[in-house]
Amino acid sequence: MEDRAQIQEHIKTQGELVRRLKSEKASKEQIDEEVAKLLQLKAQLGGEDGKHQFVLKTPKGTRDYNPKQMAIREKVFNTIISCFKRHGAETIDTPVFELKETLTGKYGEDSKLIYDLKDQGGELLSLRYDLTVPFARYLAMNKITNIKRYHIAKVYRRDNPAMTRGRYREFYQCDFDIAGQYDAMIPDAECLKIVHEILSELQLGEFCIKVNDRRILDGMFAVCGVPDEKFRTICSTVDKLDKMSWEDVKKEMVNEKGLSEEAADQIGEYVSMRGGMDLAERLLQDQKMCQNKQACAGLSDIKLLFSYLQLFQVTDKVVFDLSLARGLDYYTGVIYEAVLTQAGVPPLASDSQNGASSEESAGVGSVAGGGRYDGLVGMFDPKGRKVPCVGVSIGIERIFSIMEQKAEASAEKVRTTEVQVMVASAQKNLLEERLRLVTELWNAGIKAEVMYKKNPKLLSQLQHCEEGGVPLVAILGEQELKDGVVKLRVVSTREEVDISRADLIAEIKRRTSEA
Amino acid sequence: MEDRAQIQEHIKTQGELVRRLKSEKASKEQIDEEVAKLLQLKAQLGGEDGKHQFVLKTPKGTRDYNPKQMAIREKVFNTIISCFKRHGAETIDTPVFELKETLTGKYGEDSKLIYDLKDQGGELLSLRYDLTVPFARYLAMNKITNIKRYHIAKVYRRDNPAMTRGRYREFYQCDFDIAGQYDAMIPDAECLKIVHEILSELQLGEFCIKVNDRRILDGMFAVCGVPDEKFRTICSTVDKLDKMSWEDVKKEMVNEKGLSEEAADQIGEYVSMRGGMDLAERLLQDQKMCQNKQACAGLSDIKLLFSYLQLFQVTDKVVFDLSLARGLDYYTGVIYEAVLTQAGVPPLASDSQNGASSEESAGVGSVAGGGRYDGLVGMFDPKGRKVPCVGVSIGIERIFSIMEQKAEASAEKVRTTEVQVMVASAQKNLLEERLRLVTELWNAGIKAEVMYKKNPKLLSQLQHCEEGGVPLVAILGEQELKDGVVKLRVVSTREEVDISRADLIAEIKRRTSEA
Repeated sequence: MEDRAQIQEHIKTQGELVRRLKSEKASKEQIDEEVAKLLQLKAQLGGEDGKHQFVLKTPKGTRDYNPKQMAIREKVFNTIISCFKRHGAETIDTPVFELKETLTGKYGEDSKLIYDLKDQGGELLSLRYDLTVPFARYLAMNKITNIKRYHIAKVYRRDNPAMTRGRYREFYQCDFDIAGQYDAMIPDAECLKIVHEILSELQLGEFCIKVNDRRILDGMFAVCGVPDEKFRTICSTVDKLDKMSWEDVKKEMVNEKGLSEEAADQIGEYVSMRGGMDLAERLLQDQKMCQNKQACAGLSDIKLLFSYLQLFQVTDKVVFDLSLARGLDYYTGVIYEAVLTQAGVPPLASDSQNGASSEESAGVGSVAGGGRYDGLVGMFDPKGRKVPCVGVSIGIERIFSIMEQKAEASAEKVRTTEVQVMVASAQKNLLEERLRLVTELWNAGIKAEVMYKKNPKLLSQLQHCEEGGVPLVAILGEQELKDGVVKLRVVSTREEVDISRADLIAEIKRRTSEA
Repeated sequence: MEDRAQIQEHIKTQGELVRRLKSEKASKEQIDEEVAKLLQLKAQLGGEDGKHQFVLKTPKGTRDYNPKQMAIREKVFNTIISCFKRHGAETIDTPVFELKETLTGKYGEDSKLIYDLKDQGGELLSLRYDLTVPFARYLAMNKITNIKRYHIAKVYRRDNPAMTRGRYREFYQCDFDIAGQYDAMIPDAECLKIVHEILSELQLGEFCIKVNDRRILDGMFAVCGVPDEKFRTICSTVDKLDKMSWEDVKKEMVNEKGLSEEAADQIGEYVSMRGGMDLAERLLQDQKMCQNKQACAGLSDIKLLFSYLQLFQVTDKVVFDLSLARGLDYYTGVIYEAVLTQAGVPPLASDSQNGASSEESAGVGSVAGGGRYDGLVGMFDPKGRKVPCVGVSIGIERIFSIMEQKAEASAEKVRTTEVQVMVASAQKNLLEERLRLVTELWNAGIKAEVMYKKNPKLLSQLQHCEEGGVPLVAILGEQELKDGVVKLRVVSTREEVDISRADLIAEIKRRTSEA
C-alpha cells in the first residue's frame, strides 16, 4: 500500500494538473476525468482518522454481472454457440492483450480508444479492441489458410459509455468467421444464414438483414463523380442514413465534405434503392453502374449471394440496401448488418460511436454485422500472403439488454441455480441425517442443497425453495427416518408424498425430467 | 501508426536505457526485457525498404488456445461447472480490471506482480490478480451477506512464466466460494466434498487433500516459542516442506530467520504429524497445544470438519497435515490443498513463485487449494462489517496440461467440431442440391456442413470427414436425386446405405444418438 506521504504528493501533482487544464480551457470531459482521479486520491487518504477509505465501484464503463444476468447471458450464449456448432465451427481463444504493434494501424481513427498497459518493463501491450485482428494475427502466426471458427470473448474500448443502452467499455463480442480460398459467396451466404437462425431462435421480434458490397459503394461513388480521395469520408456520411434524413446527409456531403451538389444528388438516387436479386440485375443494366468494373463485380456477387440465400430459405429477411456502408476500413467485399425492426424495441438512435467511423455506429436496433475482409491476414504475413475471410459479429450486449428487459417484464422468474431438491428437516438435531441424504443425492448426480445450519426452521427452508425456484423438498423427520421414507414436497402445489429411501433418487429424476 | 521519426526517437532512448542498465550491472532479466523492447522497436522500423515488419507472437507468458486445446478445455470446464451446479452455486462475473486501489494492500509482496493499465486520463486501473478480491469487492459493494457462487475467468500476474509446466501470466481461475454466517465447518466441508468430486470425475489419478487451520499453525508457533512478529516468515518457511527436506527448512529457520534451534526442533516434531480426526483429538490432549486457545479452537473445528467429511464419504482422501501452510495472508481458519500423488504426473517441483509467499507455490502436483477468509469482505465495507467466507480454487491450467498430455498419449483423436454429417456430392454441378439438403438438416437441428466449392472431389470430401472425425456422409448423385434417396455412408466402416429423403433426418438422429 502506498504510504500517506506518497499519496499526498500525488494529490499535489494532480491538483496542479486540474488547475492547469482549467486555465487552458481543456474539454469538460478531460477536466472531469482528472477531477475524478483527484477525488479518488483524496478518498484514499481518508478522513482525519487516517483510515483508508475505498471507492466501492467498478471502473467507468464496466459492470459486474449478477447471478440473474449471468443466467440470461448463459441462455443467450447457449443459443448462439449451438448455432455455431450446428454449422461445424471450431473455437479458439487468444490473450486479452496483444503486443501494442499488433493493433497499430488497424482501426484508423478509433485507435485512440485502445487501452494500453503501463510500461512495467518488457513488451508494450494493449487490450484487444476486437476479435478480428487477433484472429488475423493467429492465422498468420500459425500459417493457417482454412478454418471456420467462433470466438466469444470480451473486448475493450475507451469510449464514452452509454450503459443504459447496452454500451460499455468492456463488452462481449461473439464472432463467427470463415477463412479460406473458396468459391464465391458460399461462405458469405452461410454467415447470413447463421444470423437468420440466431435472431429467429432468440425471439427478439422482427428483424431485417441489410446487404451491400464495398465494391458497389466504391463503384457508385466513382460513377457519381466523387473524387477518389473522398470515398472514405463520403462513405462515412452515407453510413449515417439510418439515423439522419437524406436532406441532412446531403447537407453534410456538400457543406462539410465539399462534394458537388450534382454528385450528391446522384448518390441520393442510388442510396434510396433497396430490393433483392432483381435490384442487382437492374443495376447491372444501369447505364452508369455497368461501366464500373468494381461495381459490376459486386453486383454479380450480390446476385449469386441471393441465389444461395434462396436455397438457404432466408431471403424473407434479407434486403439489398445501397445505403448500407459499414465503417471499418478492412472490409473488401460483401457487408451486412441485421437490425431489429419491431416497434417496442428501445431505439439506439443516439448510440453512434465517435461520429460515423465506428463499427458500432450501426444504427437503430443493430444486433449483428460483418462482411468480407480479404486483406487483413496479409497485413500480418511477412510475405503478405492473403487469406480471404468473411465473418459476422453478433451484438451480444444489445441482445442481453433486450433479454433482460423482457425478463423484467415477464411474470416468469429467472432461476439463478439449477437445484432440483433441497434436503430439509422438520425437527431439530437432524443435521447428520440431512448431510447423509444430500450426499446420496449428489453421488447420484442430482442437484441438491442443504442449509448450513444445525437446526434450521422448516419454514425458512421452504421459503428458500420458493424464492429460488427449487421445485422439490425432501423432508426428513423422526417418523420418516423410522419408516425408512422421505417426505417429498412439491413446492409449487405444496403436495407431499412419502417415498421410500430406495425409490427416492428415481422419483426425483422422474419428477424433474418432466419439467 | 507511429511515424518513422517517432520510432527512431524511441529507439535512441531505448538504446540509452539498455546501455545504462548494462553499465549499472542490472539484473540479466531486466536487461533482456529492455533489449527485447529495443529489438521490437527496430523490427517496427523495418528493413531498408521501410516496410513495417511485425513481430508475430503473443505477449510473453500468454498463449493462444487452438481448437484442440479448446475442446479439452470445454470438457474440463463442463465437468467442473456441472459439479458447482450440482451443489447449487450461482455464478457472477466481474470486469477484467479493477480500480487500482481495490487491489492495493491485498497481496503483500506479490503486489509487484500486478499489471497496471497506462494512465490515459481517468481512473487508475489494474488487471485482476485473482477472483477472490473482486468477489469480496462485489459482496461489499452490493451489501450481499449470503451467496454460494462460482466464477471462472482469467487472472493476470507479471510473473516469470514457466509455460511448459502450465504456468502463465494470463491464466484461468476456477473459484467456488460460500459467503455467509453459518454453523461451523458445514460449508467448509462442502468445499472439500467438491474438490473430491471434481478430481475423481476428471480421472487425474490418485490424489490427496491436505487440511490444516491457520489458527493451529499460529498456536503451534506460539507454543514452540516463535516470537509473534516471526509467525508469517516462519510460516512461509514451513510452506516449503513439500519441496525441501526438514533439515533444509530448519536451516532456513535458524540461519536465515534467526529462530532458536530449540523452537525449530519443536516445530519439526509437530509438522511431521499427519492423520485424521484421531490426530486432532490427540493434539487436543497435547500438553503444550491444549494451553493455546487459538490452537484448541482450530483443533476442535478440524474434529468437527472430519465428522462432516465422514458423512460426505470423502475421508479416504483427506489428511490433517500440520505442515500445510498456504501463503496468502487473508486466510483466517481452515486451509486445504489437493495434490496429485500418482507417479507419472510430471512434477512441478521448481514451480515455486517468488520464493514462498505465493498461493501457487503449492508444491508437487498441487491442483486445488483454498480456505476460510473471514476478514476480507470487511476490508471493503466502509463500516468494516464482516462476511465470513470459505472457498476453493481449482488449478485449472495444471489440469489442462495433464489432460493435454493424456490426449497426446491416447490413440483416440480429440474432435474439435461436433459435426454429425457432411453433405457431399459424387458428381459435378450439384452445389444447389447440396445447399438445399444441408438447409433441411440445419433446420432440423442437425450439425452438418458442406464444402464451399462448386465441384469438390468426392475423395476430398471423404478425407475431410476422416480427418475431422465426422461420423456420417450424406452423398448426393444424379441417381440418388432421381430415386429420391440419399446415400448415407458410415465413415468408420465405409458401409453405405440408401435412405429415402423423408427418413433421412430421423435416420441421422438415430445413428448419431447411439454414439
